[in-house]
Amino acid sequence: MHTEFEQYLKSQAKLDEDAIKAVICMATHRSLAKNGLLLQSGEICRHKVFILNGMLRSSVITANGSEHILQFSPENTWTLDVESYDKEIPSAVNICAVEPTEVLLWKKADFQNLLSEIPGLKNFSQQLISRNIYYSRQRIATVLGGTPEEKYDDFIRTFPGLMMRLPLRMIASYLGISLKTLTRIRHAQLHHEAK
Amino acid sequence: MHTEFEQYLKSQAKLDEDAIKAVICMATHRSLAKNGLLLQSGEICRHKVFILNGMLRSSVITANGSEHILQFSPENTWTLDVESYDKEIPSAVNICAVEPTEVLLWKKADFQNLLSEIPGLKNFSQQLISRNIYYSRQRIATVLGGTPEEKYDDFIRTFPGLMMRLPLRMIASYLGISLKTLTRIRHAQLHHEAK
Repeated sequence: MHTEFEQYLKSQAKLDEDAIKAVICMATHRSLAKNGLLLQSGEICRHKVFILNGMLRSSVITANGSEHILQFSPENTWTLDVESYDKEIPSAVNICAVEPTEVLLWKKADFQNLLSEIPGLKNFSQQLISRNIYYSRQRIATVLGGTPEEKYDDFIRTFPGLMMRLPLRMIASYLGISLKTLTRIRHAQLHHEAK
Repeated sequence: MHTEFEQYLKSQAKLDEDAIKAVICMATHRSLAKNGLLLQSGEICRHKVFILNGMLRSSVITANGSEHILQFSPENTWTLDVESYDKEIPSAVNICAVEPTEVLLWKKADFQNLLSEIPGLKNFSQQLISRNIYYSRQRIATVLGGTPEEKYDDFIRTFPGLMMRLPLRMIASYLGISLKTLTRIRHAQLHHEAK
């Protein structure tokens, strides 16, 4: 049923078949329609989430109603609100489907058991945490320091496949620039390429 | 010699005296003058750093020479460029003293040994990593989403003691706003308080 996820665990986490079976055995499957909410701010984030296909976005909504996107999570990535999950406190984050999306979910207690029983999963999990830290640091530097053009180029380089799947307003929100500025940059680049 | 650091390890990491002795035994002490460089971009970050007193800042310098500050590290905090340290690759970050600063340094191999020998240190180290992740996520949300006034208020709330120790241009660089905007906000608030 989850052949691609099995393949992912085998190639990325180097788990053997028994371990893979144990991990999958504890997961529940869920389908989300486009714009479906997986986590609403105010709720406690109680699951680890793996995206089988589709894409989620994690965002915060400010007091004046504008959305700021922290992260896109396409297929074969993991997501959660880590602070809410660790501390079991209400989340400040919404996690929502950009496209029709299928996910696997693990309850915290179940995932903790898997981590303590499968050393390979624990190692892999720590690698994912490290990557997340490097990425956050890079993202802070880009958001702080880049011109809008640099931010856009950085996005294209980091997520070459996502551009065509996302509405421009979401990319603008992720980059912290206005839709107008993003449209201007795209227009200039398309014009440049057409020459 | 390092009574305050001993106190810190006792109260924050709940280590016993033998463990504290082992941790301190592996450290080397270093003093930095104001503006002294602890890590220059291009070098590999080879040490864990604990700040005994003073303050460091971690920043990236863009191609056009402007500085973007990722982090301030005052006394009783830890710092390093985590990606450079983990992967042993050249760092993109400068770590530099804002004030005359004294630090303790541990070589990576020595700190790894301490982590594997002292379970309490390992737990504490993981707590610090988690806090760092929560903080980075919060910082991305603030930099992306806040008005300059919100960013400034957030800074005052998060680092109540640092305001008076930092030149305004560094605070502006940390917040990703112009010095002119920061000066305007400060002026408006002082004017408001004086009423």
